[in-house]
Amino acid sequence: MRFLHTADWHIGKKLHGFGLNKEQDDAYKQILNIAETEKVDAIIIAGDLYDRAVPGEDSVKQLNSMLIDMNLKHKFPILAISGNHDSATRLHTGSEWFSATNFFLNTKVSQSTTPIEIADTQFFLLPYFEPFEAKQYLQDDKLKNVTEAMVKLVEKMQANFDPNKKHVLIAHFFAAGSEHVDSETQVSVGGLNAIPVDILSPFDYVALGHLHGKDALHAEKVKYSGSPVKFSISEANQTKGVWIVDTDPFKVEFKPLTPTKDIRILTESYETLTSPDFYNQQNCNDFLSIQLTDSKIIPNVMQSLREIYPYIINLERANGPVLTDNKVADIDPNLDPMTLLKKFFKESTEEDMSETQEKWAADTLKTANKEVN
Amino acid sequence: MRFLHTADWHIGKKLHGFGLNKEQDDAYKQILNIAETEKVDAIIIAGDLYDRAVPGEDSVKQLNSMLIDMNLKHKFPILAISGNHDSATRLHTGSEWFSATNFFLNTKVSQSTTPIEIADTQFFLLPYFEPFEAKQYLQDDKLKNVTEAMVKLVEKMQANFDPNKKHVLIAHFFAAGSEHVDSETQVSVGGLNAIPVDILSPFDYVALGHLHGKDALHAEKVKYSGSPVKFSISEANQTKGVWIVDTDPFKVEFKPLTPTKDIRILTESYETLTSPDFYNQQNCNDFLSIQLTDSKIIPNVMQSLREIYPYIINLERANGPVLTDNKVADIDPNLDPMTLLKKFFKESTEEDMSETQEKWAADTLKTANKEVN
Repeated sequence: MRFLHTADWHIGKKLHGFGLNKEQDDAYKQILNIAETEKVDAIIIAGDLYDRAVPGEDSVKQLNSMLIDMNLKHKFPILAISGNHDSATRLHTGSEWFSATNFFLNTKVSQSTTPIEIADTQFFLLPYFEPFEAKQYLQDDKLKNVTEAMVKLVEKMQANFDPNKKHVLIAHFFAAGSEHVDSETQVSVGGLNAIPVDILSPFDYVALGHLHGKDALHAEKVKYSGSPVKFSISEANQTKGVWIVDTDPFKVEFKPLTPTKDIRILTESYETLTSPDFYNQQNCNDFLSIQLTDSKIIPNVMQSLREIYPYIINLERANGPVLTDNKVADIDPNLDPMTLLKKFFKESTEEDMSETQEKWAADTLKTANKEVN
Repeated sequence: MRFLHTADWHIGKKLHGFGLNKEQDDAYKQILNIAETEKVDAIIIAGDLYDRAVPGEDSVKQLNSMLIDMNLKHKFPILAISGNHDSATRLHTGSEWFSATNFFLNTKVSQSTTPIEIADTQFFLLPYFEPFEAKQYLQDDKLKNVTEAMVKLVEKMQANFDPNKKHVLIAHFFAAGSEHVDSETQVSVGGLNAIPVDILSPFDYVALGHLHGKDALHAEKVKYSGSPVKFSISEANQTKGVWIVDTDPFKVEFKPLTPTKDIRILTESYETLTSPDFYNQQNCNDFLSIQLTDSKIIPNVMQSLREIYPYIINLERANGPVLTDNKVADIDPNLDPMTLLKKFFKESTEEDMSETQEKWAADTLKTANKEVN
């Protein structure tokens, strides 16, 4: 059995106001290509298919097209679960019909302990769940947390193990000991809701979703696939891709995806950033977090940088805020207001105030003084 | 070919704040019973399956259960379309898989001209559509309105007619000449968006949705089924039900549904309404619009009536507002304020003001006068 493991598609996700649907479509096409080239027997999507419980109509159309393409057109069996971003109820729609074409979409804990068998492997599809749902299904009000529920669920799954088959768990949770970045919605940072990896030892492989980096967890047979697309600046340095997993003999291989529009951090001076020698070497259409190394004030900095780099998602000063800059700090705040203003104007614009500007300032100051007295 | 024609289920609909899910579930069970008893070959649902484009999770669960029950459990072929209340995109989810079990759900105009054949009949499933969608599909920018689009669509359907079969159109629109009540969301009151019935003459039967009364249109072979449940006081006097249609020989028969909780108008005096002789003969748990025949003021009238009739959805005076009542009109507004108040108090409560009440009124009047001067 050879399968492809992906997760966290987050269809509908926006990045600082920019839609990611083209990037997601492109990543999908690459995933499909890998599935075809690697001749996988199934595609696993371990939760968070959508970014929101109530996705927009465009997102519904986009995910539906992908699922139809994979399952009905390209005939790949799909093993999918709902994640914490999905509405289990909404995502469930149609799933009673999907299984006829080997598209298995589990959205209820109660579905998780009955294996789905494909070739030499039993797959257990456990959607993201809240403790109350496990309590209800396991008829045990004493379960204190997700880990206790998980222990019981694994026991029930094991009771259905066929010893002649391999056993794969598909789930969506925070595994204890994994590293996460700020783009993941944290159910809980460690503590009660993090599930220890050792209770997953009965499985030959655990295909996880929830964390967006493939390296979030370091375990041979328990892996996050990570998201197919970068969703945050904190993911800028991650390599996105999917796992190709063979069950017999066991083997995992990471297949990277090439982003159409990368997320990158540029730490440079304004002069460098605006120099053609520099930007002609750049993919200026990437999503960029710019860390300016300058310490002086630059008028209209965002506007002028956006003319070269239209998809700036973040602009910061690499060396801290401009106002703690020495030149500005040099100005004595005890000076009279007009002198202070003139000095500040010169620091900011590198020009003296014109006679007219000085008259405007004096008039405004006079009015302001009148209002105070 | 024998089929059941229903429409306008409006799952998720609320009536003056009261949920109707129980009534809808009960109507569904009756519809299923009729389908079984009448041994129909298919069930038609002519649009507005949901009440809203984004139905709540409870509504999604409810409609999904009904569809699963009808199609997967009871094996009835379903022929359904989206109505103006549905989001075509959302409702479309899963439909590529549904057809494998003879559940045909059309949400796009482009699907409407390809017939679905069951037994001796070709069904054309035309969802509710906006003119731009028809223009796009028909590649004709000159289409001025829905009727012009409809003429073209019918032509395209006719081109696919098998002369050896019967031809049934399933659609969701406002048919010119039909009568409608205020509970229906009007696409347009007559005029450009109303479709003349004569252009539908090529069909052996037209199963319409949109208007909620079965008698909205008087045509032998073009019928609204109406909604299975009353959704408004304006529907209080309608008989709800479904049509059973035979294609050969052609025959239509109306099968009424029994409401669990009816909507009724009670035009009675307060004395009658609160008399056990009267209310013990009533189904007090119906949704009631009460038209009080009294002309005098009744303190806390809604509160006291709700103790007997918990589901009052409307309370009005049958003979117009109380304040135009003769006794009140008799009071001369030129009297001094205290005399006026005393008279008004007596009219309202049928008692004189007590000494304390009179003192309070005098004090309040004094304060009020002070504030004016």
